[in-house]
Amino acid sequence: MLNQPARGFTTQEFETRLANIQAKMASESMGAILLTTEHDLYYFTGFLSQFWQSPTRPWFVVIPASGQPIAVIPEIGVQSMKSEFMTDVRSWSSPHATDDGVTLLSEAIIETLGATGSTVLGLHKGRETHIRMPLGDFEKVMNNLKAANPNFTIKDATPIIRDVRMIKSEAEIEKVRYVAQTVSGVFENLFDFANIGMTDAELFRNFKLEALKAGVDNVSYLVGGAGQQGYDDVIAPPAGRKLRSGDILMFDTGCTFDGYYCDFDRNYGFGDVNDTAKRIHNAVWQATEAGLALAKPGNSCAQVFRAMDEILQKNGALGESVGRYGHGLGIQLTEPPSFTAWEQDVLREGMIMTLEPGMIYAPGRMILHEENLVIRKDGPELLSRRAPSELPIKA
Amino acid sequence: MLNQPARGFTTQEFETRLANIQAKMASESMGAILLTTEHDLYYFTGFLSQFWQSPTRPWFVVIPASGQPIAVIPEIGVQSMKSEFMTDVRSWSSPHATDDGVTLLSEAIIETLGATGSTVLGLHKGRETHIRMPLGDFEKVMNNLKAANPNFTIKDATPIIRDVRMIKSEAEIEKVRYVAQTVSGVFENLFDFANIGMTDAELFRNFKLEALKAGVDNVSYLVGGAGQQGYDDVIAPPAGRKLRSGDILMFDTGCTFDGYYCDFDRNYGFGDVNDTAKRIHNAVWQATEAGLALAKPGNSCAQVFRAMDEILQKNGALGESVGRYGHGLGIQLTEPPSFTAWEQDVLREGMIMTLEPGMIYAPGRMILHEENLVIRKDGPELLSRRAPSELPIKA
Repeated sequence: MLNQPARGFTTQEFETRLANIQAKMASESMGAILLTTEHDLYYFTGFLSQFWQSPTRPWFVVIPASGQPIAVIPEIGVQSMKSEFMTDVRSWSSPHATDDGVTLLSEAIIETLGATGSTVLGLHKGRETHIRMPLGDFEKVMNNLKAANPNFTIKDATPIIRDVRMIKSEAEIEKVRYVAQTVSGVFENLFDFANIGMTDAELFRNFKLEALKAGVDNVSYLVGGAGQQGYDDVIAPPAGRKLRSGDILMFDTGCTFDGYYCDFDRNYGFGDVNDTAKRIHNAVWQATEAGLALAKPGNSCAQVFRAMDEILQKNGALGESVGRYGHGLGIQLTEPPSFTAWEQDVLREGMIMTLEPGMIYAPGRMILHEENLVIRKDGPELLSRRAPSELPIKA
Repeated sequence: MLNQPARGFTTQEFETRLANIQAKMASESMGAILLTTEHDLYYFTGFLSQFWQSPTRPWFVVIPASGQPIAVIPEIGVQSMKSEFMTDVRSWSSPHATDDGVTLLSEAIIETLGATGSTVLGLHKGRETHIRMPLGDFEKVMNNLKAANPNFTIKDATPIIRDVRMIKSEAEIEKVRYVAQTVSGVFENLFDFANIGMTDAELFRNFKLEALKAGVDNVSYLVGGAGQQGYDDVIAPPAGRKLRSGDILMFDTGCTFDGYYCDFDRNYGFGDVNDTAKRIHNAVWQATEAGLALAKPGNSCAQVFRAMDEILQKNGALGESVGRYGHGLGIQLTEPPSFTAWEQDVLREGMIMTLEPGMIYAPGRMILHEENLVIRKDGPELLSRRAPSELPIKA
């Protein structure tokens, strides 16, 4: 097992995150931001729990324009939420018969807006977000805020939250590096636990066991594909198919350490793999090289996309159904921005990204490739260990 | 490994689910229901994928008042979504620069409402739900629908969806039974892989490995607590604490098979466990017995709650912070209804429930207990194997 980084973050780190968002709130004239999701709460408060898997209880954090965040949460979470950084923790017994935090949350927002003299509440409205609370309760909170001040307005906070979360600290990078390096080791040993004749369910199980033994906290995401000289569906769970000669097997995994993800895949050939499959594997590897060459501060996501796409087109891509060739990575399996033809976001130091070119080279035959990296001053630092340029084959 | 039930469901099962919800839609005069979450889509279409962990793409299903459901989803999911049952699958290349399914979804809803002559769209607004799509896009869809028909209205569909999903088929029960029985076996062997001196991180890892080896698909949820003669926080991840004599260790796990959960816990003593801890463990076990005695059709959730609470109060409970003594279970770790003092929902045949009494018996010292069962005509059928009435202790 590799040496694990420390769990959690320093109070200083949370203070920096808070200062970063508050600086942007000032330029947007936002008096407060309301956060409702697992990942935003982890980022801005350090609250990490699998309890989010239960949809029963809503959890809220209010970030004021100045001063400390306010947590408005079910009683069951108070002890985990409280820290040197999180001191204002308000709670109610949840689930509640009639008022699951609505009044308590409304009061916290009204108090915060009042203290800053602002009427503007920031809320996630943008791409890749949602509001994690019942729509009925959300409407009640909005009505309470309008009743308290008729000038109350909502502003989309997604652009500024996205901006802050995109740039990772060294402590965040260290967690992703640990999990990506650990999983690289598992992938490098895959032929030790994958053989022709195994069902996909066995292959998935073996991969999970090996990753846990190697030192990841959770195999939170594992999808795969296997098929003759390439695969087709890449998001389905195992269905009972047996691995056979001529198959290309791909695993794409998001394992976590302390709430931080890696997200990359590897391809393997078994038995009689033909030259076309080998060539296409090398083509997606070369496309990744083209992406790596441009993965530096100042280049736009669209530029990196085009460099990868050019290689794939040259090699006969029939199109792709994934919609992008990579994305941000951190406390979510996928984070903004995306490497698409249209994304004008510019790469900056400290962004953790995946490069994920994939191509359909014949009907029903696809090969995908993926690496994880962090953007450094002069270019990318790989967090996963680079895949071999030639497809590994088990005879 | 126990014999695994078949994966997936018959087309007939999906037709029954559809007929059940459409019958209720008729009595509510709803022309269509819009679904946006992983669990509703799995329930009503059979679409199961870990791809939901990426927040990038929205996924939609429209249930019409009559006829087949319409899926409006990213291209990457088309192949997995299509089935004998799901034939109307509309898609777009996602992520998209300007229109991530908004137009396609609006058209599908307008078409569906038009065909039924209804102006009422059902949407989740109630307890334990949320709308999984960007708020900005949600507003755009609502505006499109109002523009198409000024009489357009929204109605809360949570009560009828909840009603349909609460009653499980035998095929659903079989999946939960399999995973609960498998995890019961892991719990029964816990002393083989848990020892004084191990860190909580090791204990968590060992449990996950054993559960995967025993035949669960995923250890989707694992929380635990350990402390002297009882534990305190039960939702925090491992923090590096070593197990020592006098500790009570509790694991609470939601493992899955084919997307269906078990959710129960077990307690273990190590070394010098005192009589109070033993007595309290027996008290929560007795509270579960009281719950089991009332877990039959016709009794309300509040009645079952009170029976359990009476035992806990008699044994000196200082209060509880969890807010309930159990809940529904199925394709979510926790589903409605809840065993609370105020829940008037009545138990019905086919409901899968957990009984989860817990008590704080001294400041910072809690013991929780949990079992899984299905409500049958004459009473409960246990899906987990009943915990021993006496706390198991490893000397």
